[in-house]
Amino acid sequence: MRITSEQFSALDKAYRALLVNSLSGFKSANLIGTADEQGQQNLSMVSSVFHLGAHPPLVGMIMRPASVPRHTLENIIATGCYTINHVHPAIVESAHQTAARYDKTVSEFDAVGLTPEASAAMTAPYVAESRLKFAVELSSQQELDVNGTVLVIGKIVELIVDEEVVQPDGYVDIEALESVAVTGLDSYHTTQRLSRLSYAKPTKPLTRLAVDGSED
Amino acid sequence: MRITSEQFSALDKAYRALLVNSLSGFKSANLIGTADEQGQQNLSMVSSVFHLGAHPPLVGMIMRPASVPRHTLENIIATGCYTINHVHPAIVESAHQTAARYDKTVSEFDAVGLTPEASAAMTAPYVAESRLKFAVELSSQQELDVNGTVLVIGKIVELIVDEEVVQPDGYVDIEALESVAVTGLDSYHTTQRLSRLSYAKPTKPLTRLAVDGSED
Repeated sequence: MRITSEQFSALDKAYRALLVNSLSGFKSANLIGTADEQGQQNLSMVSSVFHLGAHPPLVGMIMRPASVPRHTLENIIATGCYTINHVHPAIVESAHQTAARYDKTVSEFDAVGLTPEASAAMTAPYVAESRLKFAVELSSQQELDVNGTVLVIGKIVELIVDEEVVQPDGYVDIEALESVAVTGLDSYHTTQRLSRLSYAKPTKPLTRLAVDGSED
Repeated sequence: MRITSEQFSALDKAYRALLVNSLSGFKSANLIGTADEQGQQNLSMVSSVFHLGAHPPLVGMIMRPASVPRHTLENIIATGCYTINHVHPAIVESAHQTAARYDKTVSEFDAVGLTPEASAAMTAPYVAESRLKFAVELSSQQELDVNGTVLVIGKIVELIVDEEVVQPDGYVDIEALESVAVTGLDSYHTTQRLSRLSYAKPTKPLTRLAVDGSED
Protein backbone atom coordinates (compact mmCIF):
# COMPACT_ATOMS: atom_id res chain seq x y z
CA MET A 1 0.00 0.00 0.00
CA ARG A 2 1.31 3.43 -0.93
CA ILE A 3 -0.18 6.64 0.44
CA THR A 4 0.93 9.99 -0.92
CA SER A 5 0.78 13.46 0.56
CA GLU A 6 -2.45 14.31 -1.26
CA GLN A 7 -4.06 11.05 -0.12
CA PHE A 8 -3.18 11.76 3.52
CA SER A 9 -5.13 15.04 3.30
CA ALA A 10 -8.16 13.29 1.81
CA LEU A 11 -8.43 10.58 4.48
CA ASP A 12 -11.26 10.47 7.00
CA LYS A 13 -10.11 12.32 10.13
CA ALA A 14 -10.45 9.40 12.60
CA TYR A 15 -8.85 6.97 10.13
CA ARG A 16 -5.94 9.35 9.54
CA ALA A 17 -5.44 9.84 13.29
CA LEU A 18 -5.10 6.08 13.87
CA LEU A 19 -2.95 5.58 10.78
CA VAL A 20 -0.45 8.36 11.42
CA ASN A 21 -0.23 7.62 15.14
CA SER A 22 0.93 4.11 14.19
CA LEU A 23 3.86 5.18 12.01
CA SER A 24 6.55 6.38 14.40
CA GLY A 25 6.78 2.91 15.99
CA PHE A 26 6.40 1.77 19.59
CA LYS A 27 5.70 4.50 22.11
CA SER A 28 6.18 4.77 25.85
CA ALA A 29 3.16 4.48 28.18
CA ASN A 30 3.33 6.87 31.08
CA LEU A 31 0.98 8.44 33.59
CA ILE A 32 1.67 12.11 34.30
CA GLY A 33 0.85 13.13 37.86
CA THR A 34 0.27 16.79 38.69
CA ALA A 35 -1.48 18.99 41.23
CA ASP A 36 -2.73 22.55 40.92
CA GLU A 37 -1.81 25.32 43.39
CA GLN A 38 -4.78 24.37 45.57
CA GLY A 39 -3.65 20.75 45.75
CA GLN A 40 -6.29 19.35 43.37
CA GLN A 41 -4.62 16.31 41.78
CA ASN A 42 -4.69 15.25 38.15
CA LEU A 43 -3.52 12.15 36.34
CA SER A 44 -3.17 11.78 32.59
CA MET A 45 -2.02 9.01 30.24
CA VAL A 46 0.62 10.19 27.77
CA SER A 47 2.38 8.24 25.00
CA SER A 48 4.68 11.07 23.94
CA VAL A 49 7.39 11.04 26.62
CA PHE A 50 10.85 10.75 25.09
CA HIS A 51 14.47 10.72 26.23
CA LEU A 52 16.28 14.00 25.65
CA GLY A 53 19.59 13.73 27.46
CA ALA A 54 21.40 11.94 30.27
CA HIS A 55 23.52 14.75 31.77
CA PRO A 56 21.58 16.56 33.01
CA PRO A 57 18.82 13.91 32.93
CA LEU A 58 16.14 15.41 30.68
CA VAL A 59 12.84 14.19 29.24
CA GLY A 60 10.55 15.78 26.69
CA MET A 61 6.88 15.27 25.96
CA ILE A 62 4.38 16.64 23.48
CA MET A 63 1.01 17.95 24.61
CA ARG A 64 -1.95 19.06 22.56
CA PRO A 65 -3.10 22.22 24.36
CA ALA A 66 -6.72 21.92 23.27
CA SER A 67 -7.17 18.28 24.22
CA VAL A 68 -7.70 16.21 27.34
CA PRO A 69 -4.35 16.74 29.10
CA ARG A 70 -5.11 20.48 29.26
CA HIS A 71 -5.40 20.33 33.07
CA THR A 72 -2.07 18.52 33.17
CA LEU A 73 -0.35 21.23 31.13
CA GLU A 74 -1.98 23.99 33.19
CA ASN A 75 -0.80 22.36 36.40
CA ILE A 76 2.73 21.88 35.08
CA ILE A 77 3.00 25.53 34.11
CA ALA A 78 1.44 26.72 37.39
CA THR A 79 3.58 24.59 39.71
CA GLY A 80 6.66 23.79 37.62
CA CYS A 81 6.62 20.09 38.45
CA TYR A 82 5.17 16.70 37.48
CA THR A 83 5.77 13.00 37.92
CA ILE A 84 6.16 10.36 35.20
CA ASN A 85 5.01 6.83 36.09
CA HIS A 86 5.40 3.63 34.03
CA VAL A 87 2.30 1.55 33.31
CA HIS A 88 2.14 -2.26 33.64
CA PRO A 89 -0.64 -4.69 32.66
CA ALA A 90 -2.46 -4.64 36.03
CA ILE A 91 -3.08 -0.89 35.73
CA VAL A 92 -3.27 -0.43 31.95
CA GLU A 93 -7.06 -0.11 31.83
CA SER A 94 -7.09 2.42 34.68
CA ALA A 95 -4.32 4.31 32.91
CA HIS A 96 -6.22 4.38 29.59
CA GLN A 97 -9.38 5.53 31.40
CA THR A 98 -7.60 8.69 32.63
CA ALA A 99 -7.96 9.95 29.05
CA ALA A 100 -11.71 10.47 29.56
CA ARG A 101 -12.80 14.11 29.80
CA TYR A 102 -13.34 14.41 33.54
CA ASP A 103 -14.17 17.78 35.08
CA LYS A 104 -11.28 19.75 36.53
CA THR A 105 -12.70 19.15 40.03
CA VAL A 106 -12.46 15.37 39.61
CA SER A 107 -9.19 13.65 40.49
CA GLU A 108 -8.49 10.93 37.93
CA PHE A 109 -6.79 9.00 40.76
CA ASP A 110 -10.22 8.61 42.41
CA ALA A 111 -12.12 8.18 39.15
CA VAL A 112 -9.99 5.28 37.86
CA GLY A 113 -8.93 3.73 41.17
CA LEU A 114 -5.23 4.52 41.36
CA THR A 115 -3.44 5.71 44.51
CA PRO A 116 -1.62 9.05 44.81
CA GLU A 117 1.70 8.79 46.64
CA ALA A 118 3.56 11.82 47.99
CA SER A 119 7.01 12.61 46.62
CA ALA A 120 9.78 13.92 48.85
CA ALA A 121 10.91 16.08 45.94
CA MET A 122 7.76 18.03 44.97
CA THR A 123 4.01 18.57 45.36
CA ALA A 124 3.10 16.54 42.25
CA PRO A 125 1.88 13.05 43.23
CA TYR A 126 3.34 9.74 42.13
CA VAL A 127 1.20 6.73 41.22
CA ALA A 128 1.73 4.30 44.11
CA GLU A 129 1.04 1.25 41.90
CA SER A 130 3.70 2.19 39.32
CA ARG A 131 6.97 0.24 39.46
CA LEU A 132 9.23 2.91 37.93
CA LYS A 133 8.53 6.58 38.53
CA PHE A 134 10.41 9.82 38.52
CA ALA A 135 9.85 13.40 39.56
CA VAL A 136 10.47 16.13 36.99
CA GLU A 137 11.05 19.87 37.30
CA LEU A 138 9.86 21.93 34.34
CA SER A 139 12.79 23.35 32.34
CA SER A 140 10.96 24.90 29.40
CA GLN A 141 7.76 24.77 27.41
CA GLN A 142 7.24 26.10 23.92
CA GLU A 143 4.50 26.00 21.33
CA LEU A 144 5.72 24.42 18.10
CA ASP A 145 4.98 26.52 15.03
CA VAL A 146 4.25 23.51 12.82
CA ASN A 147 0.99 22.55 14.53
CA GLY A 148 0.52 24.35 17.83
CA THR A 149 1.44 21.37 20.01
CA VAL A 150 3.50 22.16 23.08
CA LEU A 151 6.96 20.71 23.73
CA VAL A 152 7.42 20.32 27.49
CA ILE A 153 10.98 19.67 28.70
CA GLY A 154 11.89 18.80 32.27
CA LYS A 155 14.77 17.68 34.45
CA ILE A 156 14.56 14.43 36.41
CA VAL A 157 15.20 15.21 40.09
CA GLU A 158 14.18 11.93 41.73
CA LEU A 159 13.92 8.33 40.51
CA ILE A 160 12.19 5.48 42.31
CA VAL A 161 12.64 1.99 40.87
CA ASP A 162 12.91 -1.59 42.09
CA GLU A 163 16.65 -2.13 42.69
CA GLU A 164 16.53 -5.69 41.33
CA VAL A 165 15.90 -4.54 37.74
CA VAL A 166 18.82 -2.06 37.64
CA GLN A 167 21.71 -3.92 36.02
CA PRO A 168 25.39 -3.52 37.02
CA ASP A 169 26.06 -1.22 34.06
CA GLY A 170 23.07 1.06 34.70
CA TYR A 171 20.65 -0.50 32.19
CA VAL A 172 17.16 -0.76 33.67
CA ASP A 173 15.28 -3.91 32.69
CA ILE A 174 11.86 -2.32 32.20
CA GLU A 175 10.70 -5.54 30.53
CA ALA A 176 11.11 -7.30 33.91
CA LEU A 177 8.89 -4.55 35.36
CA GLU A 178 6.32 -5.45 32.67
CA SER A 179 6.21 -1.83 31.50
CA VAL A 180 3.94 -1.66 28.49
CA ALA A 181 4.41 -0.09 25.05
CA VAL A 182 1.72 1.70 23.03
CA THR A 183 0.93 1.66 19.32
CA GLY A 184 -1.53 3.90 17.55
CA LEU A 185 -3.94 5.51 19.98
CA ASP A 186 -5.23 2.56 21.95
CA SER A 187 -3.15 -0.64 21.63
CA TYR A 188 -1.01 -1.87 24.53
CA HIS A 189 1.80 -4.41 24.36
CA THR A 190 4.17 -6.29 26.63
CA THR A 191 7.58 -7.21 25.26
CA GLN A 192 10.05 -10.02 24.83
CA ARG A 193 13.77 -9.20 24.63
CA LEU A 194 15.64 -10.27 21.52
CA SER A 195 18.97 -9.32 23.10
CA ARG A 196 21.17 -6.45 24.06
CA LEU A 197 23.89 -5.74 21.50
CA SER A 198 27.48 -4.61 22.03
CA TYR A 199 28.68 -1.09 21.21
CA ALA A 200 29.01 -0.84 17.41
CA LYS A 201 32.48 -0.27 15.92
CA PRO A 202 33.34 -0.19 12.20
CA THR A 203 35.87 -3.03 12.36
CA LYS A 204 34.40 -5.33 14.98
CA PRO A 205 31.45 -7.74 14.71
CA LEU A 206 28.58 -7.19 17.15
CA THR A 207 28.09 -9.59 20.02
CA ARG A 208 24.83 -10.36 21.77
CA LEU A 209 24.76 -9.36 25.39
CA ALA A 210 22.77 -10.77 28.28
CA VAL A 211 20.47 -8.43 30.17
CA ASP A 212 23.25 -7.62 32.66
CA GLY A 213 25.56 -6.46 29.86
CA SER A 214 27.83 -9.55 29.93
CA GLU A 215 28.61 -11.48 26.73
CA ASP A 216 25.81 -13.93 26.14
CA MET B 1 16.14 2.25 44.93
CA ARG B 2 15.90 6.05 45.13
CA ILE B 3 18.21 8.33 43.17
CA THR B 4 18.19 12.06 43.81
CA SER B 5 19.29 14.95 41.64
CA GLU B 6 22.70 15.17 43.34
CA GLN B 7 23.22 11.43 42.95
CA PHE B 8 22.49 11.61 39.20
CA SER B 9 25.32 14.14 38.81
CA ALA B 10 27.75 11.93 40.72
CA LEU B 11 27.12 8.76 38.68
CA ASP B 12 29.72 7.33 36.30
CA LYS B 13 29.07 8.76 32.83
CA ALA B 14 28.46 5.43 31.02
CA TYR B 15 26.30 4.12 33.88
CA ARG B 16 24.24 7.31 33.88
CA ALA B 17 23.77 7.18 30.10
CA LEU B 18 22.33 3.66 30.29
CA LEU B 19 20.23 4.42 33.35
CA VAL B 20 18.64 7.64 32.09
CA ASN B 21 18.10 6.26 28.58
CA SER B 22 15.98 3.51 30.18
CA LEU B 23 13.57 5.79 32.02
CA SER B 24 11.28 7.23 29.36
CA GLY B 25 9.99 3.73 28.50
CA PHE B 26 9.92 1.83 25.23
CA LYS B 27 11.30 3.67 22.22
CA SER B 28 10.82 3.29 18.49
CA ALA B 29 13.55 1.67 16.36
CA ASN B 30 14.00 3.38 13.03
CA LEU B 31 16.62 3.63 10.33
CA ILE B 32 17.03 7.14 8.90
CA GLY B 33 17.98 7.11 5.21
CA THR B 34 19.60 10.19 3.68
CA ALA B 35 21.84 11.24 0.80
CA ASP B 36 24.08 14.26 0.43
CA GLU B 37 23.92 16.61 -2.56
CA GLN B 38 26.41 14.42 -4.44
CA GLY B 39 24.26 11.31 -3.91
CA GLN B 40 26.44 9.74 -1.23
CA GLN B 41 24.03 7.71 0.90
CA ASN B 42 23.90 7.42 4.67
CA LEU B 43 21.92 5.23 7.05
CA SER B 44 21.60 5.75 10.78
CA MET B 45 19.76 3.98 13.60
CA VAL B 46 17.66 6.35 15.69
CA SER B 47 15.50 5.59 18.73
CA SER B 48 14.15 9.12 19.14
CA VAL B 49 11.48 9.36 16.42
CA PHE B 50 8.13 10.40 17.88
CA HIS B 51 4.62 11.20 16.67
CA LEU B 52 3.89 14.92 16.52
CA GLY B 53 0.58 15.27 14.68
CA ALA B 54 -1.77 13.57 12.23
CA HIS B 55 -3.02 16.49 10.14
CA PRO B 56 -0.67 17.37 8.62
CA PRO B 57 1.19 14.11 9.31
CA LEU B 58 4.27 15.17 11.30
CA VAL B 59 7.09 13.36 13.07
CA GLY B 60 9.83 14.69 15.30
CA MET B 61 13.22 13.29 16.24
CA ILE B 62 16.09 14.35 18.48
CA MET B 63 19.65 14.34 17.20
CA ARG B 64 22.87 14.96 19.07
CA PRO B 65 24.85 17.20 16.71
CA ALA B 66 28.25 16.10 17.98
CA SER B 67 27.58 12.36 17.79
CA VAL B 68 27.37 9.64 15.19
CA PRO B 69 24.29 10.75 13.25
CA ARG B 70 26.09 13.98 12.34
CA HIS B 71 26.21 12.97 8.67
CA THR B 72 22.51 12.26 8.82
CA LEU B 73 21.70 15.69 10.22
CA GLU B 74 24.02 17.39 7.70
CA ASN B 75 22.30 15.56 4.84
CA ILE B 76 18.83 16.41 6.11
CA ILE B 77 19.69 20.09 6.33
CA ALA B 78 21.42 20.08 2.92
CA THR B 79 18.67 18.25 1.00
CA GLY B 80 15.56 18.84 3.12
CA CYS B 81 14.49 15.20 3.05
CA TYR B 82 14.92 11.81 4.74
CA THR B 83 13.25 8.43 5.04
CA ILE B 84 12.19 6.62 8.22
CA ASN B 85 12.22 2.82 8.09
CA HIS B 86 10.97 0.36 10.74
CA VAL B 87 13.35 -2.35 11.96
CA HIS B 88 12.37 -6.02 12.41
CA PRO B 89 14.35 -8.91 13.95
CA ALA B 90 15.99 -10.07 10.70
CA ILE B 91 17.69 -6.67 10.26
CA VAL B 92 18.12 -5.55 13.86
CA GLU B 93 21.85 -6.34 14.03
CA SER B 94 22.52 -4.56 10.74
CA ALA B 95 20.50 -1.63 12.00
CA HIS B 96 22.43 -1.46 15.28
CA GLN B 97 25.72 -1.69 13.38
CA THR B 98 24.91 1.56 11.48
CA ALA B 99 25.74 3.35 14.75
CA ALA B 100 29.45 2.63 14.25
CA ARG B 101 31.55 5.67 13.32
CA TYR B 102 32.04 5.05 9.63
CA ASP B 103 33.77 7.65 7.47
CA LYS B 104 31.53 10.04 5.57
CA THR B 105 32.62 8.36 2.31
CA VAL B 106 31.30 4.98 3.47
CA SER B 107 27.65 4.14 2.84
CA GLU B 108 26.28 2.32 5.87
CA PHE B 109 24.01 0.44 3.44
CA ASP B 110 27.11 -1.25 2.03
CA ALA B 111 28.88 -1.55 5.35
CA VAL B 112 26.06 -3.38 7.12
CA GLY B 113 24.48 -5.19 4.17
CA LEU B 114 21.17 -3.40 3.69
CA THR B 115 19.72 -2.40 0.34
CA PRO B 116 18.94 1.19 -0.69
CA GLU B 117 15.63 1.55 -2.53
CA ALA B 118 14.70 4.65 -4.51
CA SER B 119 11.69 6.68 -3.44
CA ALA B 120 9.35 8.27 -5.97
CA ALA B 121 9.01 11.21 -3.60
CA MET B 122 12.61 12.27 -2.95
CA THR B 123 16.33 11.62 -3.32
CA ALA B 124 16.71 10.09 0.15
CA PRO B 125 16.83 6.27 -0.05
CA TYR B 126 14.49 3.83 1.64
CA VAL B 127 15.69 0.57 3.20
CA ALA B 128 14.37 -2.14 0.86
CA GLU B 129 14.21 -4.74 3.64
CA SER B 130 12.02 -2.57 5.89
CA ARG B 131 8.31 -3.46 6.07
CA LEU B 132 6.99 0.00 6.94
CA LYS B 133 8.71 3.11 5.65
CA PHE B 134 7.87 6.69 4.93
CA ALA B 135 9.42 9.67 3.21
CA VAL B 136 9.71 12.92 5.15
CA GLU B 137 10.23 16.54 4.08
CA LEU B 138 12.07 18.68 6.61
CA SER B 139 9.75 21.27 8.17
CA SER B 140 12.04 22.79 10.78
CA GLN B 141 15.11 22.13 12.88
CA GLN B 142 16.12 23.93 16.03
CA GLU B 143 18.78 23.55 18.67
CA LEU B 144 17.25 23.09 22.11
CA ASP B 145 18.66 25.47 24.73
CA VAL B 146 18.55 22.89 27.52
CA ASN B 147 21.34 20.70 26.16
CA GLY B 148 22.21 21.56 22.56
CA THR B 149 20.38 18.60 21.00
CA VAL B 150 18.55 19.33 17.76
CA LEU B 151 14.80 18.85 17.32
CA VAL B 152 14.13 17.86 13.71
CA ILE B 153 10.50 18.05 12.54
CA GLY B 154 9.27 16.78 9.20
CA LYS B 155 6.12 16.14 7.19
CA ILE B 156 5.31 12.64 5.94
CA VAL B 157 4.82 12.82 2.17
CA GLU B 158 4.77 9.12 1.24
CA LEU B 159 4.00 5.93 3.18
CA ILE B 160 4.77 2.40 2.04
CA VAL B 161 3.36 -0.44 4.13
CA ASP B 162 2.02 -3.96 3.65
CA GLU B 163 -1.73 -3.49 3.07
CA GLU B 164 -2.62 -6.57 5.12
CA VAL B 165 -1.57 -4.96 8.40
CA VAL B 166 -3.63 -1.77 7.92
CA GLN B 167 -6.89 -2.33 9.80
CA PRO B 168 -10.32 -1.07 8.63
CA ASP B 169 -10.21 1.87 11.05
CA GLY B 170 -6.70 3.00 10.03
CA TYR B 171 -4.77 1.34 12.89
CA VAL B 172 -1.54 -0.23 11.61
CA ASP B 173 -0.64 -3.52 13.26
CA ILE B 174 3.10 -2.95 13.54
CA GLU B 175 3.31 -5.96 15.85
CA ALA B 176 2.31 -8.15 12.89
CA LEU B 177 5.20 -6.54 10.98
CA GLU B 178 7.46 -7.58 13.89
CA SER B 179 8.66 -4.01 14.29
CA VAL B 180 10.99 -3.89 17.29
CA ALA B 181 11.10 -1.60 20.30
CA VAL B 182 14.25 -0.31 22.01
CA THR B 183 15.11 0.18 25.67
CA GLY B 184 18.16 1.91 27.02
CA LEU B 185 20.88 2.23 24.39
CA ASP B 186 21.18 -1.33 23.10
CA SER B 187 18.28 -3.63 23.98
CA TYR B 188 15.77 -4.75 21.34
CA HIS B 189 12.34 -6.25 21.93
CA THR B 190 9.46 -7.77 20.05
CA THR B 191 5.97 -7.37 21.46
CA GLN B 192 2.79 -9.20 22.38
CA ARG B 193 -0.50 -7.31 22.29
CA LEU B 194 -2.51 -7.10 25.50
CA SER B 195 -5.46 -5.56 23.63
CA ARG B 196 -6.75 -2.42 22.05
CA LEU B 197 -9.08 -0.45 24.33
CA SER B 198 -12.19 1.54 23.48
CA TYR B 199 -12.28 5.36 23.55
CA ALA B 200 -12.39 6.45 27.19
CA LYS B 201 -15.49 8.30 28.44
CA PRO B 202 -16.19 9.37 32.04
CA THR B 203 -19.45 7.45 32.38
CA LYS B 204 -18.81 4.33 30.32
CA PRO B 205 -16.67 1.27 31.15
CA LEU B 206 -13.84 0.44 28.74
CA THR B 207 -14.18 -2.52 26.43
CA ARG B 208 -11.33 -4.55 24.98
CA LEU B 209 -11.08 -4.36 21.21
CA ALA B 210 -9.70 -6.85 18.72
CA VAL B 211 -6.86 -5.72 16.47
CA ASP B 212 -9.36 -4.66 13.80
CA GLY B 213 -11.14 -2.33 16.23
CA SER B 214 -14.23 -4.54 16.70
CA GLU B 215 -15.44 -5.47 20.18
CA ASP B 216 -13.49 -8.49 21.37
